[in-house]
Amino acid sequence: MRAAAAEAGLDAYVATSDESIAYLTGFRPLQLERFFGVVLRESGAAVVVPKLDEGQIAGASASLERISYEAASDGIPELVAALGGARSVGVEEDHIVLARTLALENRGVAPVPAGSILASLRARKDAAEVEQIRRACELVEVGLEQMFAELRLGDTEQAVNARVEGRLREHGATDSHPLILFGENAANPHAQPGIRKLRAGDVVCADLSARLDGYWGDLTRCATVGPAGDWARATWAVVREAQAAAIEACRAGVPARDLDAAQRRIVEAAPELGQCLHGAGHAIGLALHEPPFLVPRTETPLEVGMVFTIEPGLYQHGTGGIRLEDDVLVGPDGPQILSTLPLELVELPS
Amino acid sequence: MRAAAAEAGLDAYVATSDESIAYLTGFRPLQLERFFGVVLRESGAAVVVPKLDEGQIAGASASLERISYEAASDGIPELVAALGGARSVGVEEDHIVLARTLALENRGVAPVPAGSILASLRARKDAAEVEQIRRACELVEVGLEQMFAELRLGDTEQAVNARVEGRLREHGATDSHPLILFGENAANPHAQPGIRKLRAGDVVCADLSARLDGYWGDLTRCATVGPAGDWARATWAVVREAQAAAIEACRAGVPARDLDAAQRRIVEAAPELGQCLHGAGHAIGLALHEPPFLVPRTETPLEVGMVFTIEPGLYQHGTGGIRLEDDVLVGPDGPQILSTLPLELVELPS
Repeated sequence: MRAAAAEAGLDAYVATSDESIAYLTGFRPLQLERFFGVVLRESGAAVVVPKLDEGQIAGASASLERISYEAASDGIPELVAALGGARSVGVEEDHIVLARTLALENRGVAPVPAGSILASLRARKDAAEVEQIRRACELVEVGLEQMFAELRLGDTEQAVNARVEGRLREHGATDSHPLILFGENAANPHAQPGIRKLRAGDVVCADLSARLDGYWGDLTRCATVGPAGDWARATWAVVREAQAAAIEACRAGVPARDLDAAQRRIVEAAPELGQCLHGAGHAIGLALHEPPFLVPRTETPLEVGMVFTIEPGLYQHGTGGIRLEDDVLVGPDGPQILSTLPLELVELPS
Repeated sequence: MRAAAAEAGLDAYVATSDESIAYLTGFRPLQLERFFGVVLRESGAAVVVPKLDEGQIAGASASLERISYEAASDGIPELVAALGGARSVGVEEDHIVLARTLALENRGVAPVPAGSILASLRARKDAAEVEQIRRACELVEVGLEQMFAELRLGDTEQAVNARVEGRLREHGATDSHPLILFGENAANPHAQPGIRKLRAGDVVCADLSARLDGYWGDLTRCATVGPAGDWARATWAVVREAQAAAIEACRAGVPARDLDAAQRRIVEAAPELGQCLHGAGHAIGLALHEPPFLVPRTETPLEVGMVFTIEPGLYQHGTGGIRLEDDVLVGPDGPQILSTLPLELVELPS
């Protein structure tokens, strides 16, 4: 990382996102309003944390210099001191906020957008990281199976999401974002689970994610309450075909946008079933959503070791939504799906 | 808000944080990597969202102009078009990231740090907002009582935190951050709950927060497993005294730093019991942590309608931590505590 920063003409680098700090140090901060950062410069690496959070870095590598600041400081003077006169300093421009870049500029430091240096290192997962994502996927799969097995008419979205989240955490997830939506609510992929009760004839769209030992898994499966109607059956078939096409394209050298195009061409050919509201997916790892993003504007070519969610969907206002999501590794010989749960539309008792 | 922005010499204002968007529009976004913003300019207010998230703004006020952008865009061209030629544009400098301010600059817009305009409006809660915080506190209080009632020797931190979070969500919390720590782990206020089991003689430090209908409540209470030992009893008494002193200072016109000084002077006088690791607390409302922060560098005078957590603590490495936290309104006649749960050190069966 230090070599890459020097090659880019930077005097130093400051990583500030939770995930990059975890990547560089092995400890994942609980960040609130106070400044956290890992400083990489010629003399080695240092971590700057609030005094309140000294306990968080107790287990980090001994070679990491520790710098903590008192509640009377905002941490910027200590950060600038740690930079030791560096002027051109790489930052994660998708994480660092304007208040902090201005504070650095006021102290003679020039923040240079250089998030892609760290992002491209993080994007290529090694075997141990892939294994962690696979384990997180396993946890999510058990969560999905158990949720579908227990789902009953009259359950509210709110209660079901709460139960699943509680259970994933009891099984070791340190974070989790269940998004299980019923019937017409599933037509809005980012709806807030509420007091809507499960009814006969509903489609259930269940997107579950969990972080286990630092790495995320993220899967989506769907169900119908009672036998699937014509819309659900037809939509599921189109979405499955779109997912298969995007997975097939998930190979080293292929531009990220091509995976999006592969699914988009199929889901957009069925406007009578619903709308295409989002891209093919996103990279996943220490962050649930990380670059490269599988959207029309991403030209980045895929590399061996990258892991993506592949998650096309179709959403019909007033009816529901169907999405199918797996986590897929760009392997040396092609795509490797890290999850094993069948894609089948689950049929729940009505 | 538009008047305040014009008075500050701004041509327009762009709010980007979840909480400010909720404050201005009544809808709280689920923001991921895509740009969200509310634009305030002479011609009225507009919201810029990804097409994926159109469903999220369905219920917002009809007077709000809706602008959505396709997956092929990053939202910045649509934002700049919505700004209609405004040059000097106020932004929330503690939220907007460098990548976006640079993108704005590249299109001829000058982002001006102006988060305090919106923050100072948000800081003074009206009666309905205070009532919402009170309701969130009630939910947290029930969660604390039930958790202490059910806590048993051998329970793991991980399982207890998961259970509490699941239950708060089943009762309507849309977000929650339980941080219940046992024994020596409680000496680190931001420890990650893990596989540590509850043992006889432990101190339990239980910090629970929940968001209900948009507003947060945040309380901390402590317990001992079996009768409190000398350290726990003495520490609890000092922390209670410090909390009472800070609450007593929670009055209109008092600089925020004085509340910190009021508690700090008391906890720092007992170094044999532990360390003072943080300030007196923070404002609370749509965000769990929002300015003003009750730390030595905040000179902002308190105003009627502000609501703060008041949460001094003492932390003894190897032994544990005691913190007592309530949510307190700056009332016209002095402090009003919004929670009712006794501060007593709970004695659990051993």
